[in-house]
Amino acid sequence: MAPSLDDFQGRHGGGVAKRSKVTIVGSGNWGSVAAKLVASNALKLDSFHDEVRMWVYEETLPNGKKLTDVINRENENVKYLPGIKLGKNVVADPDLVHAVEGADMLVFVTPHQFVEGICKRLVGKLGKDVEAISLIKGMEVKREGPRMISSVISDQLGINCCVLMGANIANEIAEGKFSEATVGYRYDRAVAAKWVQLFTTPYFSVTPVQDVEGVELCGTLKNVVAIAAGFVDGLEMGNNTKAAIMRIGLREMKRFSKLLFPSVKDTTFFESCGVADLITTCLGGRNRRVAEAFAKNRGERSFDVLEAEMLHGQKLQGVSTASELYEVLSDRGWLEMFPLFATVHEISTGRLPPSAIVEYDGNSLEVA
Amino acid sequence: MAPSLDDFQGRHGGGVAKRSKVTIVGSGNWGSVAAKLVASNALKLDSFHDEVRMWVYEETLPNGKKLTDVINRENENVKYLPGIKLGKNVVADPDLVHAVEGADMLVFVTPHQFVEGICKRLVGKLGKDVEAISLIKGMEVKREGPRMISSVISDQLGINCCVLMGANIANEIAEGKFSEATVGYRYDRAVAAKWVQLFTTPYFSVTPVQDVEGVELCGTLKNVVAIAAGFVDGLEMGNNTKAAIMRIGLREMKRFSKLLFPSVKDTTFFESCGVADLITTCLGGRNRRVAEAFAKNRGERSFDVLEAEMLHGQKLQGVSTASELYEVLSDRGWLEMFPLFATVHEISTGRLPPSAIVEYDGNSLEVA
Repeated sequence: MAPSLDDFQGRHGGGVAKRSKVTIVGSGNWGSVAAKLVASNALKLDSFHDEVRMWVYEETLPNGKKLTDVINRENENVKYLPGIKLGKNVVADPDLVHAVEGADMLVFVTPHQFVEGICKRLVGKLGKDVEAISLIKGMEVKREGPRMISSVISDQLGINCCVLMGANIANEIAEGKFSEATVGYRYDRAVAAKWVQLFTTPYFSVTPVQDVEGVELCGTLKNVVAIAAGFVDGLEMGNNTKAAIMRIGLREMKRFSKLLFPSVKDTTFFESCGVADLITTCLGGRNRRVAEAFAKNRGERSFDVLEAEMLHGQKLQGVSTASELYEVLSDRGWLEMFPLFATVHEISTGRLPPSAIVEYDGNSLEVA
Repeated sequence: MAPSLDDFQGRHGGGVAKRSKVTIVGSGNWGSVAAKLVASNALKLDSFHDEVRMWVYEETLPNGKKLTDVINRENENVKYLPGIKLGKNVVADPDLVHAVEGADMLVFVTPHQFVEGICKRLVGKLGKDVEAISLIKGMEVKREGPRMISSVISDQLGINCCVLMGANIANEIAEGKFSEATVGYRYDRAVAAKWVQLFTTPYFSVTPVQDVEGVELCGTLKNVVAIAAGFVDGLEMGNNTKAAIMRIGLREMKRFSKLLFPSVKDTTFFESCGVADLITTCLGGRNRRVAEAFAKNRGERSFDVLEAEMLHGQKLQGVSTASELYEVLSDRGWLEMFPLFATVHEISTGRLPPSAIVEYDGNSLEVA
């Protein structure tokens, strides 16, 4: 059982306004960085309870010690964010239900395949005014529409759920390098403002946008564009072509999002979750890297083989998202409106050569 | 005097519709590529006269031959685009007034400092229905407003002038690598469509946009953002930060353009002239490269010194544009609305250290 930090509260005296208690649900690389950001603000700001609980999927480390014990003793997630102090007010807790007990604000930051299971375990365990935010990139694009992670959380738990996305490579933020993020919210601007307050630091600039779907779709669709950018790199087509492909990709992201959700705003794509995250992902990122290797090998070695070799068991989101997207596009008769998305899938399944990413009949890549 | 290609016309027989005669005013690297693109379409399409005249500022080559003679004999601009055939229907002409005689469409693609002088020599020499397009990046930003190259041409010659901008590194296009461009036009969509037709090839995709000012401002302001991106590279801040700086730069480009010209459209910044040209310029490009060297030297070696060393006499547009911008911003009381533009100037003049590009008080780089 995790220690309590009630004594932290004592020194502030009894304020009138209720302090919000925050729990981080997840403790991987990005989850640990989120905990560090949130914990520094929780200590500083009167509107938050000092203690930030972090649910940790318990693991036994090679030295026989429990991960939660080490985090609580050393204030460091030695496995997923070694070398970075999280803050003394972060309390790791291996018990999911206990970790969220009394929480007013939940930050979801787990691998996306675990969200549904976690929500099931939380049903009936939360207060009715709890607010959630999802930092999880990688919602699924299904034929019946996308399965937004924020909707899964909202629907299963009956609570409001915002999202936080952006050009944020966890380790660079942990080192205090300047980054930005976008908070997408649905109705309540005051709630969004509270999330912005909780995450903003001098090196992490957060902007609220009333467009949950637009923000969340950016985070998924950009991985497909990164595959295309990787092909261009592998073919050594130069910066003109790469910029053109990224631009066409951004336009298809916008067009697809607006077709699915007419409420999605053009301006969202100018935010960190849009153009900036796209740039980061197309400059670095594993989707780009493996796609580059794929094109260099003229598609003769499959993505499965390259993934196994280069990523040690991790899967590429871009390739599976492209495949899901392709199904949606064929099903709805939209293939011709999304030549870049379609071509990425056709290349990655070996139906077209990598060079097809820039071969076109004058209409394919340039639909008005 | 340049040869005539009247015999070219003979084989098409006497069509009813008048064929437009095109002259390229300029013959540098980009001008030669433009001539190649235009010449291939002029031959193919019935709406254009086959012969494309190109005004060449006459030079004597080291072997004693005239540049125009060599171009006309070898169909190659051996000085500014060696190794690339321009097309046999390109006729180099050293006489400016003769080169534009009878022309219906003029493509301006000279260094920007020569535009005014060239226009003066053309006053009274053009038909009244002549259409112009400017491919010249680098209009000046003056206190009384920007001095758009398209306006200089329009005002001095009393003709309509479109612009063509985009992510187009001349040599990559000459090699047939896929690129895009944007044509900005003011009123007449049919005229824009004709320019699009004249420039479009299977590897060069051109989109018309009714927003001359937006398109032209993108081409100038992006160079200031490229200086900022170069600082981030020199400081080794990583991809998150670089993407954030590019995004903030794009936003300031948009904000500034719309303040000057309320008619400027948001969507223009999603075109090739906007986000794509910005990406190309911030990935490669000499503004970025010299700014990187500046930051690596902690600003201890001035831009003047680095320019002389690295660019062999060429000047950086980004640094002078930042200086002109700064004057406009101070004059109008807009400095706080454009922290990135302002900071680039303050760093490049030595008033702030390069690291200031990501140091901020929570307000400077993040104005709503």
